[in-house]
Amino acid sequence: MEWEDLARELSQQTDSKIVLLVMDGVGGLPADGRSELEAARKPNLDGLARAGVCGLADPVMMGITPGSGPAHLALFGYEPLKYRLGRGILEALGLGVEVGRNDLVARGNFATVKGGLVTDRRAGRIPTEENVRICDDLNARLPKREGVEVRVFPGKEHRFVARFTAEGLSDALSDADPQKEGKPPLLTTPQAPEAGKASAVVNRFLDDVAEVLKGEAKANAALLRGFSKFPSIPTMQELFKVRPAAVANYPMYKGLAKLLGMEVIGAGGETSDLFDALEKNWAKHDFFYVHYKKTDSSGEDGNFGAKVAAIEALDPFLPRLIALKPDVLVVTSDHSTPSSLKGHSWHPNPFLLISPTAGVDDVAVFTERACAKGMLGRFRAISVMPLMLAHALKLQKYGA
Amino acid sequence: MEWEDLARELSQQTDSKIVLLVMDGVGGLPADGRSELEAARKPNLDGLARAGVCGLADPVMMGITPGSGPAHLALFGYEPLKYRLGRGILEALGLGVEVGRNDLVARGNFATVKGGLVTDRRAGRIPTEENVRICDDLNARLPKREGVEVRVFPGKEHRFVARFTAEGLSDALSDADPQKEGKPPLLTTPQAPEAGKASAVVNRFLDDVAEVLKGEAKANAALLRGFSKFPSIPTMQELFKVRPAAVANYPMYKGLAKLLGMEVIGAGGETSDLFDALEKNWAKHDFFYVHYKKTDSSGEDGNFGAKVAAIEALDPFLPRLIALKPDVLVVTSDHSTPSSLKGHSWHPNPFLLISPTAGVDDVAVFTERACAKGMLGRFRAISVMPLMLAHALKLQKYGA
Repeated sequence: MEWEDLARELSQQTDSKIVLLVMDGVGGLPADGRSELEAARKPNLDGLARAGVCGLADPVMMGITPGSGPAHLALFGYEPLKYRLGRGILEALGLGVEVGRNDLVARGNFATVKGGLVTDRRAGRIPTEENVRICDDLNARLPKREGVEVRVFPGKEHRFVARFTAEGLSDALSDADPQKEGKPPLLTTPQAPEAGKASAVVNRFLDDVAEVLKGEAKANAALLRGFSKFPSIPTMQELFKVRPAAVANYPMYKGLAKLLGMEVIGAGGETSDLFDALEKNWAKHDFFYVHYKKTDSSGEDGNFGAKVAAIEALDPFLPRLIALKPDVLVVTSDHSTPSSLKGHSWHPNPFLLISPTAGVDDVAVFTERACAKGMLGRFRAISVMPLMLAHALKLQKYGA
Repeated sequence: MEWEDLARELSQQTDSKIVLLVMDGVGGLPADGRSELEAARKPNLDGLARAGVCGLADPVMMGITPGSGPAHLALFGYEPLKYRLGRGILEALGLGVEVGRNDLVARGNFATVKGGLVTDRRAGRIPTEENVRICDDLNARLPKREGVEVRVFPGKEHRFVARFTAEGLSDALSDADPQKEGKPPLLTTPQAPEAGKASAVVNRFLDDVAEVLKGEAKANAALLRGFSKFPSIPTMQELFKVRPAAVANYPMYKGLAKLLGMEVIGAGGETSDLFDALEKNWAKHDFFYVHYKKTDSSGEDGNFGAKVAAIEALDPFLPRLIALKPDVLVVTSDHSTPSSLKGHSWHPNPFLLISPTAGVDDVAVFTERACAKGMLGRFRAISVMPLMLAHALKLQKYGA
């Protein structure tokens, strides 16, 4: 019997409310002796650490660096080693693209190819409006191919999603992306015997795109990665009997939330928008996932100071969250993004939980090192959802 | 390969002795800043914490509140997510009721029904002697039904066990208990296609009971819950090559111990009786499970002061335990029972282990917060048995 089965059996609907605030990538590493969390002035966040219990959560398992998909799945109570989501499906759902059983989707970049080599993997980050024009152009002019329907959907700047609709398309495909500039564009290759058809369909599409866009100055080729089909995954309603909502403003997180059955409450790009949206929708849901992106993007940029500033920028909004009086409040991250590594890492997430049934430990500040001494100890992030549900009294007793 | 397979392969019989003292439900939550363990004066227990290593043990997994069955199974080295025991079987075994392959058992309450509604789910907690008389009456006067044998066994006050003997009785039955007063008595319903026969047998019994007892002032109906059959579970002798004994005085714990192959050493209701029984039987066994109930029952009553007193009442007896010089001594609980929650909870169990091979950590008192800083860290209770066996040098090396 696994956690998922336990959850179906033991979860019960109640009026208690849970807030999971994800400070994306907030965990970091010391530079000049202090991590981003240690360097930031964040009196409210530290106050929360003093009001509850803390610990460190490994997203997947010790040593494993997760993508945003598995890192979030774990936080939402889905075993990340069981469910694997392609980046393409997340991006597609985030853009509002409908995806069905016969659809294969991928994340795309428009790129610049000159003399047979990729000279710019992002086509000079063309403006989004130009992307829209190019996608309209492709959808109108791409040659029709027997038994296959293809559509492209513009994202921000140079990003798009490609959707291939046909019987029997497998997503066992390698990325069609050389990853580095100065190399020729790459075709996809099948990674399983049944992916031959999908491989042929995708590679013909890449040729067709190059033909249609050959007159473009910048966006004259397409790179594709993260091929994926719609996964079979139970909703949070089914598993946990919650009425979940996601307050987020980046496509991928909205996409993931939608996939799991959350109502997606779009929020503007300002930090205050997250809290406005949370307050406005407080009555309608009992589980709120709030996603704060800036801590991750500054970490990815390798900008220690900007990451410190992102932590400090969120801090003044926390009293608005506390004023809502959630029965359970968790603040953590999906994965760490140390600025020194300029990317996701395998380090555990600092974690705090506040609830009338949680007690209080000795942790006085919200940092990696302080959380390591917290009462919750070190645990896999798959335990975050059972902990939140338990403290919200949403889990019945197991066995007699 | 699971722990159970490892145990069969690696365990060895030795003369070393293990004592596992279970202070049932001892873990709690702060009220006015201090938990029950923090408020209690318990110099001997704190001395034990200083003499060994400590940690926090999650009974099943983080967030899961266990019944007594799964919580104890985990302590005894049985994966609680693999083995599930019905409450009926535990209660039956505790009362000394023989249960065989064709038996279906359930826990019963005598109840009062008036005007078609359950007015008292415990029939005014009738005295045990009256219960005995009523059970005798039922066993003599219940109408014989073709192919089915039914017997009831009195427990304490209003509690009894019903045993149904017939071919093909499934235990996939809902509880025949409305759980609340002011509702009509409930029949059982089959929870699987193969449970139709059992359902019919049980519901006819409930009708028969009401007919036989219609003249009773208080106990004029029966409620049944926790339908269960004899489970298939290996003994502790088979798995761990120990000669185990249980010193306990509550039916359910004695029943569970018997099921796992322990010799049950009944003890009187006084705390001293537990230690008398332990001393008297010291030579005959190498594994002793000692069960102290009062910490749980006071917690269930929501009586913080009584729980503190229960901890303080046990403390003076601990020197008798130490005088026996067990090679491994563990003190922990099966699950937490915070008085503020008036019931079992998901919080981890404070845990201490003393052995010449264990070393000593910095923990100076036996409390939830102090144990959280212990050297053993936070772990699932299924690790308790391997730890005890290892420190008793009862486990051989794994692999070459």
